[in-house]
Amino acid sequence: MNKYMQKAIDEAIKGVNQGHGGPFGAVIVKDGKIISTSHNEVLKSNDPTSHAEINVIKKASKKLQTFDLSGCEIYTTCMPCPMCMGAIRWANISTIYYGATSEDADMIGFRDQVFYDESYQNLKNIARTECLQVFRIWSQKPDKIMY
Amino acid sequence: MNKYMQKAIDEAIKGVNQGHGGPFGAVIVKDGKIISTSHNEVLKSNDPTSHAEINVIKKASKKLQTFDLSGCEIYTTCMPCPMCMGAIRWANISTIYYGATSEDADMIGFRDQVFYDESYQNLKNIARTECLQVFRIWSQKPDKIMY
Repeated sequence: MNKYMQKAIDEAIKGVNQGHGGPFGAVIVKDGKIISTSHNEVLKSNDPTSHAEINVIKKASKKLQTFDLSGCEIYTTCMPCPMCMGAIRWANISTIYYGATSEDADMIGFRDQVFYDESYQNLKNIARTECLQVFRIWSQKPDKIMY
Repeated sequence: MNKYMQKAIDEAIKGVNQGHGGPFGAVIVKDGKIISTSHNEVLKSNDPTSHAEINVIKKASKKLQTFDLSGCEIYTTCMPCPMCMGAIRWANISTIYYGATSEDADMIGFRDQVFYDESYQNLKNIARTECLQVFRIWSQKPDKIMY
């Protein structure tokens, strides 16, 4: 067993036993060193975004004091859902190890698989012109930092 | 101008002026009442997940004390990226009003569009059996709450 994945599994078990959320854990590693560990806390925090991957990225970026986690790897006990996959990309984490699949998560009642199949629905476009004006303010900001 | 979108735009402008992050704001509304407002804070928090939509969902679920935001609407100044779209779905928010498009965001240097085009890459499957054991612990938990 890979030691980082074992740690992610330990987190997942801890989360379930404590009633914090679903059976999911994650670990972020850089240069062979564990930066952060976390588990799903949707129930504990009443927060639908509190997936293991989101939490572990928040912890790692806080610890490393940067939004750019390039060079980090993530170990997660289940294939990241589209939300978490997006978070991993924004964090510039390029290597992802996962255990269970999204089909496996579906089998125990989670909705991951539906997310992959759905296209963007119920999106209504309004006030684009005014929103673009804010983009202009940003673009003209001399001290802006891209992320 | 829709008053909720105006509020989202005000948030976006505030965020840019304060140097908190990109030009993005969001508002969550339920039964015509504003539940929460937020803007992008990636730079302020050094947190790659701190998009306006994630922040506004976290605030709303904290305020309403539930991970289930069914019946809420979200107003966001830019089309949600895949991470935020996932968060909106997990939150059970079914109506999404947006202003600028992901192409617009691309035009000012953000990477949203790339995310839509990329397929799942760099995913390595390990230790599925052990991860499924945690699923079993969860499944057998008599007091589990699905979300």
